[in-house]
Amino acid sequence: MLEWLSCADPGRVHTEGRMARAALEQARESVAAFFGTRPRQVVFTSGGTEAVNSAVFAALWGRSDTRAVVPGVEHSAVREACLRWSSEVIWTKVGPDGRADLSAIQEAVAAGGVGLVNCQAGNHEVGTLQPVEQLAGLLQGGSALLHVDAAAAAGHVPLSFDGSGIDLMSVSAHKLGGPAGIGALLVRRGLRLPALLVGGEQERARRAGLENVAAAAGFGAAAAELATSLAAEEAAARRRAERLRAAAGGIAGAVVHGPADATLRLPHIVCLALPDVEAEPILIGLDRAGVAAHSGSSCSSESLEPSPVLAAMGADAERSLRLSVGWSTTDEEVELAARALPEVVSGLRALRGS
Amino acid sequence: MLEWLSCADPGRVHTEGRMARAALEQARESVAAFFGTRPRQVVFTSGGTEAVNSAVFAALWGRSDTRAVVPGVEHSAVREACLRWSSEVIWTKVGPDGRADLSAIQEAVAAGGVGLVNCQAGNHEVGTLQPVEQLAGLLQGGSALLHVDAAAAAGHVPLSFDGSGIDLMSVSAHKLGGPAGIGALLVRRGLRLPALLVGGEQERARRAGLENVAAAAGFGAAAAELATSLAAEEAAARRRAERLRAAAGGIAGAVVHGPADATLRLPHIVCLALPDVEAEPILIGLDRAGVAAHSGSSCSSESLEPSPVLAAMGADAERSLRLSVGWSTTDEEVELAARALPEVVSGLRALRGS
Repeated sequence: MLEWLSCADPGRVHTEGRMARAALEQARESVAAFFGTRPRQVVFTSGGTEAVNSAVFAALWGRSDTRAVVPGVEHSAVREACLRWSSEVIWTKVGPDGRADLSAIQEAVAAGGVGLVNCQAGNHEVGTLQPVEQLAGLLQGGSALLHVDAAAAAGHVPLSFDGSGIDLMSVSAHKLGGPAGIGALLVRRGLRLPALLVGGEQERARRAGLENVAAAAGFGAAAAELATSLAAEEAAARRRAERLRAAAGGIAGAVVHGPADATLRLPHIVCLALPDVEAEPILIGLDRAGVAAHSGSSCSSESLEPSPVLAAMGADAERSLRLSVGWSTTDEEVELAARALPEVVSGLRALRGS
Repeated sequence: MLEWLSCADPGRVHTEGRMARAALEQARESVAAFFGTRPRQVVFTSGGTEAVNSAVFAALWGRSDTRAVVPGVEHSAVREACLRWSSEVIWTKVGPDGRADLSAIQEAVAAGGVGLVNCQAGNHEVGTLQPVEQLAGLLQGGSALLHVDAAAAAGHVPLSFDGSGIDLMSVSAHKLGGPAGIGALLVRRGLRLPALLVGGEQERARRAGLENVAAAAGFGAAAAELATSLAAEEAAARRRAERLRAAAGGIAGAVVHGPADATLRLPHIVCLALPDVEAEPILIGLDRAGVAAHSGSSCSSESLEPSPVLAAMGADAERSLRLSVGWSTTDEEVELAARALPEVVSGLRALRGS
């Protein structure tokens, strides 16, 4: 990235511009290869949120069938973009483990007028993997487009775009070891959709604005690294997250959310609830112990609003805590967190005399 | 910037998150101070194009008076966003020097139904400074919002937002010495408008998506530097650009666009036209001589389409060449360009035997 922080505009024909263009296209190739698609299907955006907003807008703008299907556990970007751009949102139910109900989606689509079906690849709060492949099969031949928000899953489990039946897939670089300020919208071959940001021919006229070459280079480098290390990263994350799950599960009264079956979960996320203790003092206690955890969903400020994901699952939406491990997490840090968590909870319970 | 390239999410309460938040807010203070406004009026975006798209969307979405006034010399981002979000675009005429015609704008507003008037601060192709202050006075008390695209002018001439009568102002960091991937939309105090990107509470719910702290830090640093150096930068740019103007003006048949009066021009842009020579071979010749110049408008690929700015001015829109100087330009580079330009043109003319 450092080489490109002050590079020229890659849209220019002069030497500096052509060098920047080459770096941008090399990054695009790495991202495309990692997600199993062609470089020209990759539209760089400023992040996952812009990718999601662009996908929903592009799918619904100018269509006559503008109802959108949204399983209750989708990210707020998908939820709010669909509220903005659809004529009606059909919220579909999920199981108690957070898994989208395919027959509810089928029923919604069968009712007619649906232009867009959303289904995340993996849930950002509880880690539930969604049945995207089956869903794509069910939607095949219909007129509704399928958008997959893969921001939480990308870089943690294998994803392959071409041939998946997915029309639009949103990813975020910073969730997979890349920098902030960049993401991508993958667009199925042959699909021509309007751009959300207009006013320039960049990204094959699918996203106007000067390209962020340095950030793209960082995204490309992370994707290239993961192309060879994903299986090892996934296994390491799963082992570390299981250690945290075990520690959380050992706390009296704790509920660990998400599917019991590990193969139905993202490897790196643990979401737990303690019915008698607020999340915020736990976060502060963990922070003092050197552990950075968080409450709430992953894309808003540390709001104390109830989680729509947990509410959709029928769980207590008021109190939850998410621990996640990443490529930079060490075994020592996991051990520290696994030991600190029960101690912090005990301390808080002792303070309350409970 | 380097310190924040891999920082934590500034929306988190843990220590790393709070440090990132502090850096982001310090950057916001620097940007706000440079543009003469309060930090809370600054909404960071991924760049000037997103700022413009957000401004136009925000101003027109949900209104009943949705006609938009667009002087013919506005940037393609303003033009296309208005075509997208208004019920009707009223293109207003400009003088042969590129200056927006205030009475044409007044007339358009008086006809009714106008929700948004656009007027750039300075033109991105020919450098014409626009009568924004007078326009703001004329619009005062009316219901139409005033959006100023200041991407080309910001960092080159003084701009002061608070008290200007401007409702929305778009700026881009990379145009003033900051990095790519960040810009800002300045929003007048008290104005509540919908966000274009939804799904998170970042930027006081005016722009969803993880904040790009490193890029914001770079933008803040550039703004802080300019806060003390703008007058000197402006004078140096003007002196260098005048050297290029003189060199261009010395070429037989060359037309230098924009106002003759230097006080009506941005300091750093020279736009010239040669009726008998194409822009592209000149660009290539200059590039060989080590000079990076460009044709076309500043925010699309090096398209060979006619310039709408020059067309609106009644000039030859097919052949133009823009030379600009920046904070990193040296006197030696200007001298090189001033000498190379007539030589490249002579060489091309000799080749054609003209």
